[in-house]
Amino acid sequence: MDYVNGPGRNHLFVPGPVNIPDQVIRAMNRNNEDYRSPAIPAMTKTLLEDVKKIFKTTSGTPFLFPTTGTGAWESALTNTLSPGDRIVSFLIGQFSLLWIDQQQRLNFNVDVVESDWGQGANLEVLASKLAADTNHTIKAICIVHNETATGVTNNLATVRKILDHYNHPALFLVDGVSSICALDFRMDEWGVDVALTGSQKALSLPTGMGIVCASPKALEASKTAKSVRVFFDWKDYLKFYKLGTYWPYTPSIQLLYGLRAALDLIFEEGLENVIARHSRLAQATRLAVEAWGLKNCTQKEEWFSDTVTAVVVPPYIESSEIVRRAWKRYNLSLGLGLNKVAGKVFRIGHLGNLNEVTIFFSSLN
Amino acid sequence: MDYVNGPGRNHLFVPGPVNIPDQVIRAMNRNNEDYRSPAIPAMTKTLLEDVKKIFKTTSGTPFLFPTTGTGAWESALTNTLSPGDRIVSFLIGQFSLLWIDQQQRLNFNVDVVESDWGQGANLEVLASKLAADTNHTIKAICIVHNETATGVTNNLATVRKILDHYNHPALFLVDGVSSICALDFRMDEWGVDVALTGSQKALSLPTGMGIVCASPKALEASKTAKSVRVFFDWKDYLKFYKLGTYWPYTPSIQLLYGLRAALDLIFEEGLENVIARHSRLAQATRLAVEAWGLKNCTQKEEWFSDTVTAVVVPPYIESSEIVRRAWKRYNLSLGLGLNKVAGKVFRIGHLGNLNEVTIFFSSLN
Amino acid sequence: MDYVNGPGRNHLFVPGPVNIPDQVIRAMNRNNEDYRSPAIPAMTKTLLEDVKKIFKTTSGTPFLFPTTGTGAWESALTNTLSPGDRIVSFLIGQFSLLWIDQQQRLNFNVDVVESDWGQGANLEVLASKLAADTNHTIKAICIVHNETATGVTNNLATVRKILDHYNHPALFLVDGVSSICALDFRMDEWGVDVALTGSQKALSLPTGMGIVCASPKALEASKTAKSVRVFFDWKDYLKFYKLGTYWPYTPSIQLLYGLRAALDLIFEEGLENVIARHSRLAQATRLAVEAWGLKNCTQKEEWFSDTVTAVVVPPYIESSEIVRRAWKRYNLSLGLGLNKVAGKVFRIGHLGNLNEVTIFFSSLN
Amino acid sequence: MDYVNGPGRNHLFVPGPVNIPDQVIRAMNRNNEDYRSPAIPAMTKTLLEDVKKIFKTTSGTPFLFPTTGTGAWESALTNTLSPGDRIVSFLIGQFSLLWIDQQQRLNFNVDVVESDWGQGANLEVLASKLAADTNHTIKAICIVHNETATGVTNNLATVRKILDHYNHPALFLVDGVSSICALDFRMDEWGVDVALTGSQKALSLPTGMGIVCASPKALEASKTAKSVRVFFDWKDYLKFYKLGTYWPYTPSIQLLYGLRAALDLIFEEGLENVIARHSRLAQATRLAVEAWGLKNCTQKEEWFSDTVTAVVVPPYIESSEIVRRAWKRYNLSLGLGLNKVAGKVFRIGHLGNLNEVTIFFSSLN
Repeated sequence: MDYVNGPGRNHLFVPGPVNIPDQVIRAMNRNNEDYRSPAIPAMTKTLLEDVKKIFKTTSGTPFLFPTTGTGAWESALTNTLSPGDRIVSFLIGQFSLLWIDQQQRLNFNVDVVESDWGQGANLEVLASKLAADTNHTIKAICIVHNETATGVTNNLATVRKILDHYNHPALFLVDGVSSICALDFRMDEWGVDVALTGSQKALSLPTGMGIVCASPKALEASKTAKSVRVFFDWKDYLKFYKLGTYWPYTPSIQLLYGLRAALDLIFEEGLENVIARHSRLAQATRLAVEAWGLKNCTQKEEWFSDTVTAVVVPPYIESSEIVRRAWKRYNLSLGLGLNKVAGKVFRIGHLGNLNEVTIFFSSLN
Repeated sequence: MDYVNGPGRNHLFVPGPVNIPDQVIRAMNRNNEDYRSPAIPAMTKTLLEDVKKIFKTTSGTPFLFPTTGTGAWESALTNTLSPGDRIVSFLIGQFSLLWIDQQQRLNFNVDVVESDWGQGANLEVLASKLAADTNHTIKAICIVHNETATGVTNNLATVRKILDHYNHPALFLVDGVSSICALDFRMDEWGVDVALTGSQKALSLPTGMGIVCASPKALEASKTAKSVRVFFDWKDYLKFYKLGTYWPYTPSIQLLYGLRAALDLIFEEGLENVIARHSRLAQATRLAVEAWGLKNCTQKEEWFSDTVTAVVVPPYIESSEIVRRAWKRYNLSLGLGLNKVAGKVFRIGHLGNLNEVTIFFSSLN
Repeated sequence: MDYVNGPGRNHLFVPGPVNIPDQVIRAMNRNNEDYRSPAIPAMTKTLLEDVKKIFKTTSGTPFLFPTTGTGAWESALTNTLSPGDRIVSFLIGQFSLLWIDQQQRLNFNVDVVESDWGQGANLEVLASKLAADTNHTIKAICIVHNETATGVTNNLATVRKILDHYNHPALFLVDGVSSICALDFRMDEWGVDVALTGSQKALSLPTGMGIVCASPKALEASKTAKSVRVFFDWKDYLKFYKLGTYWPYTPSIQLLYGLRAALDLIFEEGLENVIARHSRLAQATRLAVEAWGLKNCTQKEEWFSDTVTAVVVPPYIESSEIVRRAWKRYNLSLGLGLNKVAGKVFRIGHLGNLNEVTIFFSSLN
Repeated sequence: MDYVNGPGRNHLFVPGPVNIPDQVIRAMNRNNEDYRSPAIPAMTKTLLEDVKKIFKTTSGTPFLFPTTGTGAWESALTNTLSPGDRIVSFLIGQFSLLWIDQQQRLNFNVDVVESDWGQGANLEVLASKLAADTNHTIKAICIVHNETATGVTNNLATVRKILDHYNHPALFLVDGVSSICALDFRMDEWGVDVALTGSQKALSLPTGMGIVCASPKALEASKTAKSVRVFFDWKDYLKFYKLGTYWPYTPSIQLLYGLRAALDLIFEEGLENVIARHSRLAQATRLAVEAWGLKNCTQKEEWFSDTVTAVVVPPYIESSEIVRRAWKRYNLSLGLGLNKVAGKVFRIGHLGNLNEVTIFFSSLN
């Protein structure tokens, strides 16, 4: 039984999970294997090496958790911080809100810097907080690179500059869920300490792999971090990395082969070309939105996202009605507006292995 | 690139991940979908109803976590217990050992009851502990239904009888990873409070779904349990169950369709027939082991496992060498001996969608 | 190794082979089976029954040849006619031309009625030929229902009317390759004696199955037809139909399961709805062509095809250059102009399991 | 709907269609493509080059027909011979019988040399016929390399020696359906003029591709051969080979990618290793048959087939009953006895991408 909607292909334009390339679907079309045979560690070794490239890091240590982005968040926080630690965190949309909720439930002392939804993180406030924090009570800065709910991209290079300006030792933790592999992201250059993404976003895989990458400084912090963790503990992975068997518990064989195929596609196209393609298709999307006479939810060009566009609908229309109709009539999947922008925006995902985002625009007219 | 070993099919006889039926591989051979469309909640609803049948529960509440068995363990413990809580836990092999390690790292006060590897849980000790615990300091009994490392099945009906005999209110938490859907497991009848399994075991799916089922008493306990949890928190799931959208974060679309196909296969054959088939094939395996002149690691018939047989090799042979050769020469995957029985046993998994376990025996001769 | 062209999905809009629905791809994702087991004949029986519905026949006998449309043509001709037999055949485009070439090479006496490419079959000439043929020297009328090269649909009901008007006993043989399952086709009502199609057209399967359906009159003719045939001989199939084993030689197991899935999709949507959908999407395509300021190759509305539109380009453009660029730049596959219209037209296929043909038009602008 | 038989995998041991390697199933798990795009001819070119290697020819010209072995037979005969031509053909089992039937229906003058079923071709009779044929009335020798019905392999090197001894110009046509890619076959060295196989045999693909390879002498003969042919005509293929577009009509895109994957697997293992593996597994099969106390249908060791073993059952057993039960009870598919040996033998196929034929023997005991 298929829970499908009418004849023809489903046109998937939510900002994740995104379309999976046929090559990846084929690579994952397989039986299980013994993950303790010599084959799986051999493959895992190359995956761990190659996955670093999408983070643009040479010094980082990646972990491939059988989890989602939410789990990857938890892994990033609990391995580096202790209960009560002060965090500066930016609230600019639904996904940063959810991360902050997690930070609070994990018992950190979260210093929330809120912006209007549609704006980027207020980095001036960050600067003043760091300036004031001469005792270094701030242990980490948590920021979402690209807020998927509003289509806002934060400037991480500036975050690093501010940290350096105040010579502040806070850890720099980045949610790269809807950015890594699609937007320009530079872990080493920007001094990011933990970066993370999910398989179902720009990597164009099924959901189920949370990829976390830790800097040497983050690994060091994990040795003393007192947050309780077992499933998400880096220590167990590091132990099995040393043994050369790599997995403290069972990985998804299919996702490993899928990741191999996904990375091969990205490297074949060239990571910089992939990023440039996202930029080109995003611009085309924004021009189309303009041509429809609609407004971008993102308030300034500097925050425009090249992976998702949140489109503001006129006040007399319910945006969820547009999403419902697109699905029902055209088998076209768009993203809903969430929380504060529910009913007011719908979202177009333009990330992953796409060629012509523009192709679906006419169907809305 | 395939990390394969020679021509022909890999013969997978590890006790998980197990062979995936072709019907399930086909069902999972698909693109992503929007999990917020009406289709996925509609499917999820039927999955949650149907998955209860494999636990033999009508009153339980199931959760389909994007995780592994290790994560399911963590979810079972952190949702029902608070740091410092006293647990009685049975150590009879590598997987019960790992669960106990997790219990300790989650800051519970673990009262370990150890048996020789090859024996079942010492339930007499349980009885004496419960008898002595008139103040009800024991908050939970944690037991692995089937210890995958030694091929030992514990008697859960007896655990319930003992609990009832002493009228003890401790929660009854069961790891059913290598039992549920293969061995006779009765959540409601045995008064199990939390039971859990992983998709890659008797359900014959890829790794990546940890299925946790909670009794009403366990749900009640979760309201006051103080263990820190976010990703594994039942509360978020329950909130989205009420909303009818079911998912607090992104599920694997492929695993949902896979689970649908796997359950359909099980119900078509009949759960009781599936269990009887496992019993029949397990007996055949044990007869074959006897015919080879080898010993079963499991010390008494009452503990014989119908999903995995650990075979003791003569002292002059390294069991890992047998596993290595079987893989290299015959493309046959067997389970290694783990920890205390490393080098001494190899393991034959005979769980999941199999018809003729016997078929591979001749290749060992 | 994939012979792909750039990132993202290939947008396939040639008039065959067409896009295969995911449900069909999944159904075909399987190992071989023994076609002499009880399972395959059981499935074949239902397929033969169900395939008659797409021909709208109850009295016809279908044959599922492991071949292409070209082979199906050969089967239709050699089973019903003898060398030297006179045939009236209509030349209106490349595919009718190829069929006529085959008729001549099979040593029939072909009476070719030619029209301008872009026009339908000249049925007035047919009428006059039948009127003159009082001795019934004409043994068969061969006509392509939908000429794929020019996007011209012939009026088969009128052919039948003319035959009936002159009370002429000639066999009525129809190439329904790009019509059956997409256009309105009525084998019994129109008294068609042999109709045929190929799996890769409106059935939306891979290439490899030529489906031929014979009326009782055609079956009768096959008993005396003297054309040499073995592989394409109906007699061998009929013999195995009687035996209940159905296959004189090995069928493609995968195509049988694919046909099952394809028919299920068609019946679920409803054959009349499928036909109406083709009509709707074809009209949208023609409106788009008009909006581009381009001309339809089909000269009169009565011949407009609902499965393929041949678009005439301005004289200063080479149409093959458009096709080349669409493929290279947009991963969009269009049909070339063939033979007399080479360089002058490109073709848009809009047949099969499609929902929004319109979706791709913007990419050409 | 699946027409399956019980839980677990179907164990396919008929001598075709054989098990498809997972790598090939994956490669074929794809949508259609435009066969007139630049990609498909580019791939076809390499396939035609590589496929020659499995025939061990450098001078031959291969044709990849969308057909079965029966169609490949027809192509071999009709392209090289004219009606009335005298052929010497060897009848040693059901498949040679069917080929001879085809030869007769195609109006050749067939000189049948019959042997007992279980014996090889009587080459002494061939010698005497050639000796007597000083006028060269014999135009072709037709021989099945490996008779699939009886498990008999003919000695083709000897046929060539005899032809050379009498300096006879007859064409040498070989059915290599159950031999090529599994047995030692040397087109150039043995001076074979047309050799052919089917995709579903040792190439381990689905049914649907008939591969015919023609020597320069055969190509020369095709210029004057008067047999009627269109679909199977080499001329059309040669015309499109010259154009560089390769296909006179639509090929199966999936089978092309499947052939690519199948050849890659064969070349990776090494064709000589593949042949040696077949020899080793065949010997194991014959030893097992002996161990069961059963007789090989093949009467002399010189004719033992390394791809199929026909096993004679005791007179009080119906062999078809064994086949029926193996399927019903064990999901094990064996070959039936055909025609003269119906009820008397069952057949074990051991060709294609197999590693342990032996694995299934215990299930018969």
